[in-house]
Amino acid sequence: MEKGLKIAVIGGGSSYTPELVEGFINRHHELPVRELWLVDIPEGEEKLNIVGELARRMVIKAGIDMTIYLTLDRRQALAGADFVTTQFRVGLLAARQKDEAIPLKYGVIGQETNGPGGLFKALRTIPVILEITKDIEELCPEAWLVNFTNPAGMITEAVLRHSNIKKVVGLCNVPIGMKMDLAEVLGVEADRLEIQFAGLNHMVYGLDVFLDGISIKEKALAAASDPGKQMSMKNIAALGWEPDFIKGIGVLPCPYHRYYYKTDEMLAEELEAFETTGTRADVVKGVETELFDLYKNVELQTKPEQLEKRGGAYYSEAACSLINSIYNNKQDVQPVNTKNCGAIAGIPYDSAVEVNCIITKEGPKPITVGELPVAVRGLVQQIKSFERTAVEAAVSGDYYNALTAMAINPLVPSDTIAKYLLDDMLEAHKDYLPAFFHSEKA
Amino acid sequence: MEKGLKIAVIGGGSSYTPELVEGFINRHHELPVRELWLVDIPEGEEKLNIVGELARRMVIKAGIDMTIYLTLDRRQALAGADFVTTQFRVGLLAARQKDEAIPLKYGVIGQETNGPGGLFKALRTIPVILEITKDIEELCPEAWLVNFTNPAGMITEAVLRHSNIKKVVGLCNVPIGMKMDLAEVLGVEADRLEIQFAGLNHMVYGLDVFLDGISIKEKALAAASDPGKQMSMKNIAALGWEPDFIKGIGVLPCPYHRYYYKTDEMLAEELEAFETTGTRADVVKGVETELFDLYKNVELQTKPEQLEKRGGAYYSEAACSLINSIYNNKQDVQPVNTKNCGAIAGIPYDSAVEVNCIITKEGPKPITVGELPVAVRGLVQQIKSFERTAVEAAVSGDYYNALTAMAINPLVPSDTIAKYLLDDMLEAHKDYLPAFFHSEKA
Amino acid sequence: MEKGLKIAVIGGGSSYTPELVEGFINRHHELPVRELWLVDIPEGEEKLNIVGELARRMVIKAGIDMTIYLTLDRRQALAGADFVTTQFRVGLLAARQKDEAIPLKYGVIGQETNGPGGLFKALRTIPVILEITKDIEELCPEAWLVNFTNPAGMITEAVLRHSNIKKVVGLCNVPIGMKMDLAEVLGVEADRLEIQFAGLNHMVYGLDVFLDGISIKEKALAAASDPGKQMSMKNIAALGWEPDFIKGIGVLPCPYHRYYYKTDEMLAEELEAFETTGTRADVVKGVETELFDLYKNVELQTKPEQLEKRGGAYYSEAACSLINSIYNNKQDVQPVNTKNCGAIAGIPYDSAVEVNCIITKEGPKPITVGELPVAVRGLVQQIKSFERTAVEAAVSGDYYNALTAMAINPLVPSDTIAKYLLDDMLEAHKDYLPAFFHSEKA
Amino acid sequence: MEKGLKIAVIGGGSSYTPELVEGFINRHHELPVRELWLVDIPEGEEKLNIVGELARRMVIKAGIDMTIYLTLDRRQALAGADFVTTQFRVGLLAARQKDEAIPLKYGVIGQETNGPGGLFKALRTIPVILEITKDIEELCPEAWLVNFTNPAGMITEAVLRHSNIKKVVGLCNVPIGMKMDLAEVLGVEADRLEIQFAGLNHMVYGLDVFLDGISIKEKALAAASDPGKQMSMKNIAALGWEPDFIKGIGVLPCPYHRYYYKTDEMLAEELEAFETTGTRADVVKGVETELFDLYKNVELQTKPEQLEKRGGAYYSEAACSLINSIYNNKQDVQPVNTKNCGAIAGIPYDSAVEVNCIITKEGPKPITVGELPVAVRGLVQQIKSFERTAVEAAVSGDYYNALTAMAINPLVPSDTIAKYLLDDMLEAHKDYLPAFFHSEKA
Repeated sequence: MEKGLKIAVIGGGSSYTPELVEGFINRHHELPVRELWLVDIPEGEEKLNIVGELARRMVIKAGIDMTIYLTLDRRQALAGADFVTTQFRVGLLAARQKDEAIPLKYGVIGQETNGPGGLFKALRTIPVILEITKDIEELCPEAWLVNFTNPAGMITEAVLRHSNIKKVVGLCNVPIGMKMDLAEVLGVEADRLEIQFAGLNHMVYGLDVFLDGISIKEKALAAASDPGKQMSMKNIAALGWEPDFIKGIGVLPCPYHRYYYKTDEMLAEELEAFETTGTRADVVKGVETELFDLYKNVELQTKPEQLEKRGGAYYSEAACSLINSIYNNKQDVQPVNTKNCGAIAGIPYDSAVEVNCIITKEGPKPITVGELPVAVRGLVQQIKSFERTAVEAAVSGDYYNALTAMAINPLVPSDTIAKYLLDDMLEAHKDYLPAFFHSEKA
Repeated sequence: MEKGLKIAVIGGGSSYTPELVEGFINRHHELPVRELWLVDIPEGEEKLNIVGELARRMVIKAGIDMTIYLTLDRRQALAGADFVTTQFRVGLLAARQKDEAIPLKYGVIGQETNGPGGLFKALRTIPVILEITKDIEELCPEAWLVNFTNPAGMITEAVLRHSNIKKVVGLCNVPIGMKMDLAEVLGVEADRLEIQFAGLNHMVYGLDVFLDGISIKEKALAAASDPGKQMSMKNIAALGWEPDFIKGIGVLPCPYHRYYYKTDEMLAEELEAFETTGTRADVVKGVETELFDLYKNVELQTKPEQLEKRGGAYYSEAACSLINSIYNNKQDVQPVNTKNCGAIAGIPYDSAVEVNCIITKEGPKPITVGELPVAVRGLVQQIKSFERTAVEAAVSGDYYNALTAMAINPLVPSDTIAKYLLDDMLEAHKDYLPAFFHSEKA
Repeated sequence: MEKGLKIAVIGGGSSYTPELVEGFINRHHELPVRELWLVDIPEGEEKLNIVGELARRMVIKAGIDMTIYLTLDRRQALAGADFVTTQFRVGLLAARQKDEAIPLKYGVIGQETNGPGGLFKALRTIPVILEITKDIEELCPEAWLVNFTNPAGMITEAVLRHSNIKKVVGLCNVPIGMKMDLAEVLGVEADRLEIQFAGLNHMVYGLDVFLDGISIKEKALAAASDPGKQMSMKNIAALGWEPDFIKGIGVLPCPYHRYYYKTDEMLAEELEAFETTGTRADVVKGVETELFDLYKNVELQTKPEQLEKRGGAYYSEAACSLINSIYNNKQDVQPVNTKNCGAIAGIPYDSAVEVNCIITKEGPKPITVGELPVAVRGLVQQIKSFERTAVEAAVSGDYYNALTAMAINPLVPSDTIAKYLLDDMLEAHKDYLPAFFHSEKA
Repeated sequence: MEKGLKIAVIGGGSSYTPELVEGFINRHHELPVRELWLVDIPEGEEKLNIVGELARRMVIKAGIDMTIYLTLDRRQALAGADFVTTQFRVGLLAARQKDEAIPLKYGVIGQETNGPGGLFKALRTIPVILEITKDIEELCPEAWLVNFTNPAGMITEAVLRHSNIKKVVGLCNVPIGMKMDLAEVLGVEADRLEIQFAGLNHMVYGLDVFLDGISIKEKALAAASDPGKQMSMKNIAALGWEPDFIKGIGVLPCPYHRYYYKTDEMLAEELEAFETTGTRADVVKGVETELFDLYKNVELQTKPEQLEKRGGAYYSEAACSLINSIYNNKQDVQPVNTKNCGAIAGIPYDSAVEVNCIITKEGPKPITVGELPVAVRGLVQQIKSFERTAVEAAVSGDYYNALTAMAINPLVPSDTIAKYLLDDMLEAHKDYLPAFFHSEKA
């Protein structure tokens, strides 16, 4: 690694890429990225070129020694890479649109990460990520795979259980977003704040909150449920928490918990939004078009501020920070998705969890959590059952597994609705689910 | 014990009692019950007398040496007892009616055992059972407590965690009912059939099914989901399972699982029933009136057949069979609620589970299950989280715990609805919840 | 299985075989063994013929429909078998003699099951048993493998971890011997006595003792440590336990525990015995010669009483009883070696344990034990570490693994002695350890 | 804490104290210790005065704002303290001399921390530490208790299980010593080296070794077993490891492991040393006399170099470093004794382990280890069984528990020797074991 790093970005044509490039530029003094390979599929070539040219302009402006490579050849990008980041979307936004819209027909929230939509995103994505891990094994076996393709929890679970890759980390912008929002609500500098994160991807709790190292949990919980200060992701309605409920569970929920603890209100909100602005995918499409219009501007030499509206704020920040800490053995604390190994009691030893880790040159090491509070443990365990069943379905292409995953998802209100919904979505996504349509025939 | 057994039946005025008496009569050759103490509260005195007289007529007809005692003095009944059975209902059927009706106002299933209704039944009952265990400790420390008061799972959990009594078993008629129904559907004698039960009370699965010792799981699952042969409890609508879902989970659900896997349909069904026949409590009230009219008939000397309509079929059969196996060290296999001790992986060691046990003179010993199938584990864990939170609320009288229990129950769709529902039910049941109304003031 | 059973006995020329034959004869009314195949290796052909002829005479005398087949072709014996029992000894008694004698040169007890001798017995035997399991997979995939070749614990562990066979049970005569001896010391009929067994093979404890179902633990512990009543196996010196120690651990040790809790005295005793009568293997050789002389007598038509001196009393009784309970789905309680699955907390889920099970047509199901008493848990865990390391060494042929197993065995007092001893024993047994001598070269 | 810290040192008259004082002086810029209270018992008053005067001279020379208080009144010292360190020795070196010498009479290594000597040190010390925790609860409930009195593992276990104090850390100089020695052997700067420590106190392993964040395990293991480079504590003979054994276990042992993996050689060495120089306690007495002679010198204003010979090198360094990291929320990694909470699989959740932690203002958080290698797990588990049994004996004063602890210790070769040894040591230490001599009478 001494002579500079090669980084391969799969799904490099993503609108997120400028943030990633900015992150590498800002850390160049200690993280010597020499080659940044942006790779995409033929359907994404136009976007790849637009975003790639912007990246080149950013690098030139920064005046650093980093070369941007654009390619449709994944194997070329992977060969000899030190880090591989994945931010691709199988089926593009059109698929997400279906993940979100079809369930609404049945009165069910789509939820593109842990819900029925997330199930289908997993079914489409896991076969692809497992192919990528085979390539990594062959072409860059020492590389770290830093995945931020959603559903990041299930993808990490799949890689842990069904690949030969050991060096994998799943990343999410939810924890960093929670911290930023909480800092804002509390009116303190974010870097004075620490949150003890534990749970699953998009199902993570802040078990405790520290200001300058001292627990301020009660204060943080009160702030988090203050009707006047509701925080959320850009893509999740900031419906207010019941203060007494937050006091009761005694931990900080993440924005995605609204789908599970406020199901009815969220469904109503989604149905209304669907009527007016369409699905979140529709909204994102608009944002993306706008972003790429900006990116095309040859005068633009920096990441445009509008990118933050995209919902993925801090994603690339998190990725660059993680890569930097691994490369420099920083041993700082970051929340990532990694193998549990007993860090969280009651979750299988071999499963992926999202938990604070110290980040070393040999990867993330989870800081022991012990038992989750009884009140929140059950939901985490139930989602883990869903995730594992979904992963099995993705790997096996088994219809009954897929139906089971759908039916046990807490957002799906019955086995019968599960079946109708599954059949409808299978049909809608059939081009991206060869295992299913092959196995059905067999 | 050599000189004959003393049995105390708390809630002895229950309409179930004749079945229990019949059970003791039938086993008298090997289970020498000499004293059967039926104890009730003043409000139940009339029923106690009716059912007690019937019991005496039954014993006389049987011509055995067993004396029926009727009393309102619980301590007298307990003194020196060998077995204590509990089948009381705090707040009587009027309370159950509220448990079932109030949630429906909010579009929520009441479910008097694992749902919001069950939460309130636990809040009312647990303080009473803990007082009983104190009496047992003092008055009959060697006695076995055989509880069939619902919610039997939470009550067993409470006794295990919050009393000094070690000899406690929770009983349920769901497993025996599942076996009887399955035998009927399969057209085989019930005693050739065995089911490997594991889970929680009213959340128990048949992990495997054996005919003459040989697994017939596939056949049993197909039968269980055959649209033409839907089985259920008397008190649960026999809505049909999706055959593909049953195939997917690969285990036999219990009738109560319909509330969790067919929530929407069950809610619709309950709402409709509520409009026409009222709650299940209302129906039971009618059945009870009818039963007590029969019981009053001085010609009646045996358990009337109508009792089976009551929904508690086999309950007393299960209780007598358990007591008999303990007394005679039969070492046969029976499904009961007992301390897990690792029998089911993934459920806390100290928690109550419902699982096949061998029944010895020293009580039930669970047969090791290992891991539950991934697909069903999560729901079991979630309900266990609910149960434990509910038990803590019952013991502490803590409002926030109670709200948490309500909000994390899978039948309750949001924290806000949980709060409205909780407040409404607390008010409705305030006479039976001194811990809450005391603690609120404090 | 309806038309009668085929049983294959690997190591059929063993002196134990007549007991096995007697067991099948005695159970013939309910266990219809039609074909009993005794198979051995060419070196054992003479013994096979002697014992086989005796078996035939026994069957004729009993007048039952059972045919004895003698063969050197293992695959022929296995084809279509319903049960396979294994009682072979790789390297014959000459190997055992080395297992016991070589360690004594280094001042170390050989202990042919859990000690250095047991390590080598495992290294020789495990590769053979794994070949047998491959044959079973191919030739009689529905058969139950009932192993009583020692070290039965490690062999069961090896089959569970390194074969595709699921239907395996390890058997030992230690528990039944403990029960018989205790009955004698207590002066009660053995069938009124039950012992709750838990631990590992030759490292099993009686956690509780019941007479007619009622715990008599204190009395049993006092009897077990009564200086006037010391019990043991035929092959283990009956050195007396310290009564206060037995009271302290609060459980009944097995005879083999003397090697670990009375190491110095047992070593002294073994060294003295070695001077006078040679190793236990030498003694057994004499007994065997004597037995085969008896077996040759064509007048002999029953199992001779002298067989009990052999040290394996009740072995075949245990095997026949187990086979009978499986075949007839008896659901009685027997202690066997099987997969833990959480039955004993603190021992790996996937490891073999020796524990009371109910015996069903689908095999043994462990009765949940929970936590072993703290005082004895550590030794059990340490021996399990030894067993697992030994199994890995046997499967891999890895020198360093083998050295590790030797050095961590509690009977071996140092890494340096371990190395000398290992090297000496490897050389002595090299003909039976192809994996090691192959892997050393590679 | 803003206005400066108060630190109470129980056993302040120890010869170690100057190192502690030096540590606080060196960190004064970031760790504002204003009051350092040295407290001791009347028998230690003379030493307390000598070491206290030296401490005062050291502070004056350093020119910092820190006041040294000397007192025999523990409660005065504790009142309002921010940190409490414990380095006392119940029975002084005379007791240690017995701990080491008496076992040798029976051919048993005394081993004053994990062996029979350690058992008695625990029996004497635990009642005292539990009294101290009661005082802390009352007088300085927010204080951290930093214990380095041995046996630190059992003392931490006792405080975790039998006190109401949550803020306790056990400290040991073994890990830091291993790191320093390994750095020397490898010829690298110690601060480039990290070791992943896991296990129990004086039973800790280096699971991996990193140089600049990159694993150099193979190289470190080879160095650790290089016959020319044997490392050890000052007080443990540096007997050489078998290189093949170290390769086999695949982890770095600690110096104390020699007692368990080289028992015979260590015993021989101790017996020989006993003949020539007496026990280690005798040697330490000489060193102490020499040290206190130095300390008396009013010219001396710094920690004398001879202190390092004492065997406790780095102890106070470790303590100051820990206190500093807690106070300043440094989040650096340090190996300490703390509650397991699942960090090491296979060790009870509630038990004390020695493991790398990140050190925060809220105390140490263990970094998840997962499964220990099979080969070393068993010994760790066995020692934990011993520790827990010893703690129970210390708390209960139960003779049978104490005998059990003695007999299951791996250094004790039989139950009979255990009993003789126990009785002899009980008698020798009776003045410091009121619970036992009281309970024996009762």
